[in-house]
Amino acid sequence: MKNSIFIIFIFHSLVFIKCDNFQTVTYAEKRFEPNWDSLDSRRIPNWYDESKIGIFIHWGVFSVPSFGSEWFWDDWKSNASDYVKYMEKNFPKGFSYQEFAKDFTAELFDPQKWANLFKKAGAKYVVLTSKHHEGFTLWPSKYSFSWNAKDIGPHRDIVGDLSKAVRGAGLTFGLYHSLYEWFNPMYLSDKASHFESKEFVTKKIIPEMEELIENYKPSVLWSDGDWEAKDSYWNSTQFLAWLYNDSPVKDTVVVNDRWGIDTPCKHGDFYTCSDRFDPGVLVKHKWENAMTLDTKSWGFRRDAPLEDYLTTQELLETLARTVSCGGNILINVGPTKEGIIAPIFEERLLELGQWLNINGEAIYESTPWIYQNDSLTSDVWFTTKSNSVYAIVLDWPTNNILKLRTVKQLFVDHNPCIVLLGNSGKLDWKFLSELDVQIVFPDKSKVKSERAWVLKITK
Amino acid sequence: MKNSIFIIFIFHSLVFIKCDNFQTVTYAEKRFEPNWDSLDSRRIPNWYDESKIGIFIHWGVFSVPSFGSEWFWDDWKSNASDYVKYMEKNFPKGFSYQEFAKDFTAELFDPQKWANLFKKAGAKYVVLTSKHHEGFTLWPSKYSFSWNAKDIGPHRDIVGDLSKAVRGAGLTFGLYHSLYEWFNPMYLSDKASHFESKEFVTKKIIPEMEELIENYKPSVLWSDGDWEAKDSYWNSTQFLAWLYNDSPVKDTVVVNDRWGIDTPCKHGDFYTCSDRFDPGVLVKHKWENAMTLDTKSWGFRRDAPLEDYLTTQELLETLARTVSCGGNILINVGPTKEGIIAPIFEERLLELGQWLNINGEAIYESTPWIYQNDSLTSDVWFTTKSNSVYAIVLDWPTNNILKLRTVKQLFVDHNPCIVLLGNSGKLDWKFLSELDVQIVFPDKSKVKSERAWVLKITK
Amino acid sequence: MKNSIFIIFIFHSLVFIKCDNFQTVTYAEKRFEPNWDSLDSRRIPNWYDESKIGIFIHWGVFSVPSFGSEWFWDDWKSNASDYVKYMEKNFPKGFSYQEFAKDFTAELFDPQKWANLFKKAGAKYVVLTSKHHEGFTLWPSKYSFSWNAKDIGPHRDIVGDLSKAVRGAGLTFGLYHSLYEWFNPMYLSDKASHFESKEFVTKKIIPEMEELIENYKPSVLWSDGDWEAKDSYWNSTQFLAWLYNDSPVKDTVVVNDRWGIDTPCKHGDFYTCSDRFDPGVLVKHKWENAMTLDTKSWGFRRDAPLEDYLTTQELLETLARTVSCGGNILINVGPTKEGIIAPIFEERLLELGQWLNINGEAIYESTPWIYQNDSLTSDVWFTTKSNSVYAIVLDWPTNNILKLRTVKQLFVDHNPCIVLLGNSGKLDWKFLSELDVQIVFPDKSKVKSERAWVLKITK
Amino acid sequence: MKNSIFIIFIFHSLVFIKCDNFQTVTYAEKRFEPNWDSLDSRRIPNWYDESKIGIFIHWGVFSVPSFGSEWFWDDWKSNASDYVKYMEKNFPKGFSYQEFAKDFTAELFDPQKWANLFKKAGAKYVVLTSKHHEGFTLWPSKYSFSWNAKDIGPHRDIVGDLSKAVRGAGLTFGLYHSLYEWFNPMYLSDKASHFESKEFVTKKIIPEMEELIENYKPSVLWSDGDWEAKDSYWNSTQFLAWLYNDSPVKDTVVVNDRWGIDTPCKHGDFYTCSDRFDPGVLVKHKWENAMTLDTKSWGFRRDAPLEDYLTTQELLETLARTVSCGGNILINVGPTKEGIIAPIFEERLLELGQWLNINGEAIYESTPWIYQNDSLTSDVWFTTKSNSVYAIVLDWPTNNILKLRTVKQLFVDHNPCIVLLGNSGKLDWKFLSELDVQIVFPDKSKVKSERAWVLKITK
Repeated sequence: MKNSIFIIFIFHSLVFIKCDNFQTVTYAEKRFEPNWDSLDSRRIPNWYDESKIGIFIHWGVFSVPSFGSEWFWDDWKSNASDYVKYMEKNFPKGFSYQEFAKDFTAELFDPQKWANLFKKAGAKYVVLTSKHHEGFTLWPSKYSFSWNAKDIGPHRDIVGDLSKAVRGAGLTFGLYHSLYEWFNPMYLSDKASHFESKEFVTKKIIPEMEELIENYKPSVLWSDGDWEAKDSYWNSTQFLAWLYNDSPVKDTVVVNDRWGIDTPCKHGDFYTCSDRFDPGVLVKHKWENAMTLDTKSWGFRRDAPLEDYLTTQELLETLARTVSCGGNILINVGPTKEGIIAPIFEERLLELGQWLNINGEAIYESTPWIYQNDSLTSDVWFTTKSNSVYAIVLDWPTNNILKLRTVKQLFVDHNPCIVLLGNSGKLDWKFLSELDVQIVFPDKSKVKSERAWVLKITK
Repeated sequence: MKNSIFIIFIFHSLVFIKCDNFQTVTYAEKRFEPNWDSLDSRRIPNWYDESKIGIFIHWGVFSVPSFGSEWFWDDWKSNASDYVKYMEKNFPKGFSYQEFAKDFTAELFDPQKWANLFKKAGAKYVVLTSKHHEGFTLWPSKYSFSWNAKDIGPHRDIVGDLSKAVRGAGLTFGLYHSLYEWFNPMYLSDKASHFESKEFVTKKIIPEMEELIENYKPSVLWSDGDWEAKDSYWNSTQFLAWLYNDSPVKDTVVVNDRWGIDTPCKHGDFYTCSDRFDPGVLVKHKWENAMTLDTKSWGFRRDAPLEDYLTTQELLETLARTVSCGGNILINVGPTKEGIIAPIFEERLLELGQWLNINGEAIYESTPWIYQNDSLTSDVWFTTKSNSVYAIVLDWPTNNILKLRTVKQLFVDHNPCIVLLGNSGKLDWKFLSELDVQIVFPDKSKVKSERAWVLKITK
Repeated sequence: MKNSIFIIFIFHSLVFIKCDNFQTVTYAEKRFEPNWDSLDSRRIPNWYDESKIGIFIHWGVFSVPSFGSEWFWDDWKSNASDYVKYMEKNFPKGFSYQEFAKDFTAELFDPQKWANLFKKAGAKYVVLTSKHHEGFTLWPSKYSFSWNAKDIGPHRDIVGDLSKAVRGAGLTFGLYHSLYEWFNPMYLSDKASHFESKEFVTKKIIPEMEELIENYKPSVLWSDGDWEAKDSYWNSTQFLAWLYNDSPVKDTVVVNDRWGIDTPCKHGDFYTCSDRFDPGVLVKHKWENAMTLDTKSWGFRRDAPLEDYLTTQELLETLARTVSCGGNILINVGPTKEGIIAPIFEERLLELGQWLNINGEAIYESTPWIYQNDSLTSDVWFTTKSNSVYAIVLDWPTNNILKLRTVKQLFVDHNPCIVLLGNSGKLDWKFLSELDVQIVFPDKSKVKSERAWVLKITK
Repeated sequence: MKNSIFIIFIFHSLVFIKCDNFQTVTYAEKRFEPNWDSLDSRRIPNWYDESKIGIFIHWGVFSVPSFGSEWFWDDWKSNASDYVKYMEKNFPKGFSYQEFAKDFTAELFDPQKWANLFKKAGAKYVVLTSKHHEGFTLWPSKYSFSWNAKDIGPHRDIVGDLSKAVRGAGLTFGLYHSLYEWFNPMYLSDKASHFESKEFVTKKIIPEMEELIENYKPSVLWSDGDWEAKDSYWNSTQFLAWLYNDSPVKDTVVVNDRWGIDTPCKHGDFYTCSDRFDPGVLVKHKWENAMTLDTKSWGFRRDAPLEDYLTTQELLETLARTVSCGGNILINVGPTKEGIIAPIFEERLLELGQWLNINGEAIYESTPWIYQNDSLTSDVWFTTKSNSVYAIVLDWPTNNILKLRTVKQLFVDHNPCIVLLGNSGKLDWKFLSELDVQIVFPDKSKVKSERAWVLKITK
């Protein structure tokens, strides 16, 4: 992921308008040209929008120092003082980042356990960093001899092993892939030529992505590390034309929007715009909020205190806001170098899963409603499915009385049925004024969901 | 700590009777003889009983493999198959346990942070494993050259550094110390002689304990690893006589009961009996429930799943039961080899602290009441202080109506004032029958404490 | 180098005839075509034949296990039992070869010291393994990210540092380079296609050799690892045409003959044929005897006993035989992973240097004589220069009387002047018979050279 | 061994006189008192003087850094700049010496090979550093838990394994033992008390030496590290009385003279005085020249250049001088951390063995002659046995004529038979003058010994 500290996303060009449901009809046979107009005409495969919730996994050699963030190498070499001090204190003078790889043991990595956890969390797809900006590939790539997880460290094909487990658990498997590599001299040489030479792209990046697609058939290709060069340098449109026309995943794959300067928020099956993109208003194109439970890092940090982790409450707030505005949420966890997903992550994910067991109906396969959140009680977010509208109430209403304004039209000439998901019985409501409706909540001690309650309002 | 798998505590000799408050008056000048009759006549210093809540820390070389439990070395050498497999898979054939020590880096150990966390958790004292059964000393002991935390691994005096931070935070500092060392050849030689020779005790154990006491002046000496030999082998009574009469901590120190076969639950300032001792009835002698948040290990386990950790609810239940029955609770955390107290521990401790901020009045400086828990609603536990009785209600009462039997006498000829700690306003009550009283709880959505509510009943 | 155990050189096609001196006139401007006829028409630059003695250095990640030979990786993966046992005894199960790289510290590597030693040994050029079959590059190659000596292990540009020191000492610098890489998946993929695909050659090998030539300007390019594929796979003739026509070293560089199946002993500036090529008869094309002081390995072996090292006497025998037959000798040493050339190597080299101080006149800039060794006393070898013939006498003659046959013609109608190099005074001689001449040696206790005495016979 | 740089031996008290042969008759039953008068009355067992040549082995954790010398730890901690720089360059800041122990693998240690080499070298006994000043014991001592070769590093009982191999080869086995330990806090504490307290001696040193004697029954106990305290601190006389009276080696053991300030060169079975003691004159008490082939270190140094090693010639000179003056020679080698005796050592030892095969008659079981070396040709040294005198001629005589003065008396009224060992035939001699004799050497090309020729002169 981009280091949010210095990558500032300029958000001028998006137009947020209310829109109808996304069209996610089955894709009809058609060939794409290697230009954005043609590529952008593709309809995104249905599974993606319906899934809503994915798990993002940042794992790599950065999980060995496990200090600061997954940008450790770059921060250290940029002389960020915490990193320099850490290295000076704990390592010999000449120590190189590559020498961490040996300790990326993955000795306790059990892909089955991971997949089970993600399933219990209610996720429908999983996206793994097949290669981060460090260039270390989690599969035995033909183009990364001796700098991959089979040759050094884990001694296994992590991409392959996880893909099997994830699919075995009934989830969809996807891959993150970084285009650029901070310190790959082939890349640096192209960069020094102002990207006139393309040795890195033709010798490594394109063959490597093709290898990934052909060997592992991911349903998501989550591109990153594009921002220093144009899409023309990366051969992005040619690659995508092949991916959409001729690759083994042409009918199922979805890609994001990071394919060169100027492509984010403009091109791709779904937009990610900036990291933790969370606009709070409806976006007319399918998008994804890639966010992380450790608010300061995507990779595991040994030194992360509890206060840096999102609470389950905060996670549910983000989920509600994201889905109401048409996004998917991609929730990141950073495993340890040994292959453990720490209990604090496990707790957040399992509590999410418990919540979804009760309230998932408001999330999966839902679409944004005409309004996203209530104009009176703004922490109430809406989704819709069939002939119901779901109101996700993030905070328990004062005196057990919820006041809403935006939904008024559902009530005016109807007598809608209102239930609290997880509880039986209809809730009473009445008009408070011309504008507002009030809904009476049950005794809190009898409510099943511990937090973030969902009202299902059916005409 | 003893490995609970094969140490089964035989509990025949304790008599549980209702008793008056513990006498914890200031200790008057008096000399003790090196025999149990004399030593047992000592009155335990007040601070200990008043504190109620301590933190136990298991840290050592076992935190490096961090696999299975802190009994790793012994289990491995006893051919327990999980351990043998783990070693076979991940280490060279001849690898020895001592070679783990180099990786006990403690590189992120910040004693100040630990102390602050323990204080926020509401603990009043902290007990660190100065030396576990592996024999590795966390201080630079004169009697453990090259097998201590200064010479190898952390390169610092962990006992000294933590003692300063803990005291600086206003908490009391104590030390755990294992008498036996699984693989110390001096000990094994004494053992082979059926403890006729005492080379280990005279050359190492007694000087080492004196060194600990003199250098670090701990207020708790938590003895362990006694169980293979009699107290006469360990020179326990002589040592305790010195400790009580002439040591620099003679007025403040408290010791537990593990000083040789037959001493647990019989001798010592406080009893610990078996690990996780939690009788659920009043014990007439001061005791301590040493328990651990990871239910399967005292040392940190990298592979511990969330389900092995106590929930905050379970922790509060244990706390309530323990204090109501006259015990202190010593809550164990296992830091990582780097010196981190994992966020899952942090969360439990901070939630405990939040609970105590509201409800601590029922715990600190309290004494057991004449009854321990309610005979009708058994998950309600009592303590008392001044002229109030505190009822700790672990589960929210059905329909917000709590029914109690044991407390009836407080109501019969009085009109007690009942408040819910953290909330203002008196609660209504009435007799249900001759035996029972019912108390009306407030609307749960307005109650401050998230769990385990405390009623303060004052005549 | 090839592992001599299983590479058997078939020597059927060479014709050994007496020949005139090699033509080593200055190279005139001319362009070469990418075919062997054209390339073979090049005249070898003079410096090479005149130098006679070079030092070969095998250094790489194989210097870390330093066990068996520099073929460690391949032998281990081929299940050679010594290697498998060694790994099973000393390393964790999954340990990979790449994980040795971290311990290739070169911490005591002092290129100046090496260069001084080679100069004292009398060598005129030095050839370093820039990359052996393991693929690890001793320079920071653009095409070997994270698998090179700058990124892991030594943390320095060994090729660059040594080239400066060698040239600073007045010696010529050359580089060994392996075409194939045992375990590079790009190579293995080409191989699996029966070398129909050439991805490895076009993406890595050719750019890598160009990088080496352009950055380090070596005067020797000692190619190896060619034998599994034809020269057409390796693009050898195209590369050599560039090297001879347009590269920065076009006027000075010499290359050997390992450019594909069927090229050894047929094409190239000098032939090496098989490892330790030492035919004992004149070869009509310039050749080189690449041999090693540790007779069983080119890389350093920690476990090499004294008996596996050539004695100085054996080294001088090889030198005499090689130079007399028109070859250069390339004497190999294997430094340790720390960068030390072990004293046993140092001793051999310094004793060689001492011998050359006395007898070098018979070696440097010499040419083969019409006969190579004596037909009566076969351990006497000849060279010639100006109007002298040099007879290198490997064993002290019995009773101090040397009998020769082949040289008779020098004596028949002349009265040649005979001196022992290092001693003053002419030696007496007479005809023993029609065929033979006898020469009287001085008192051995007065002779300067300790071994291998040289007679200079001038008409 | 003492670091010769700062230990200057004051040599005032020795009186060098000509003396008769040492009395080495069988020791008769007698009990010794724990005082020097009594202990000094012991007659040294015959085997020792007859053996003449021993091998000294310095091996320990210092063989891991293998830099500077075996005093690495002390030099580093004394801020010697080379050591500080080396550590700063290559190790993390807090790295401790004890952390080297893990890399003392001894993985290639083959005691049988060592023993065979020592036997081929002509040595009759072998002395191993069971524990050097670092305190690390090469046997699993009861008194050095976790700081010994069984617990960490080699994972074997090196003392035990080598003792078996050495004895199996027919050689005598002995042990070096350091009394003091630079950084053992128990020792430092005694030292801080000006040796008033003796905790270190009573708890560790005496029991440890008894353990060594009882378990391994060494025939030499080579004490060292005594020099900071008096023999009374070390309990030396009590220990020796036990050793001579009651230990299992009482009849065979020999000890040196390092038992406290003031004991060297005064007490003990044989004197070592200072390191590399080599007085060049007869000493009236049995003594030993403990010297080392690497002139700058006893432990292996990776960075030792050839010029720091004694040549075989220098070794033979030292041997001749030592034996002629009544000493034994103890030739030190430093194995690598892997357990290899480097080829340069092997070469020296094997060349010594070859020399002894020819000339050993002049060494073994010889005694000093009335004169030690010749007064005219001073590099000729004498020994005697039966009715022969042996003249060891270190340099080949000019013009093959050896001139001697000191031996004149053997010639005056006799016609002695003179032979060159290894050659047949008597040598001619005649008087040169009243004082001097000249002996005619054979043609050097026919002499068997390569260096240091021995004349056997028999009346």
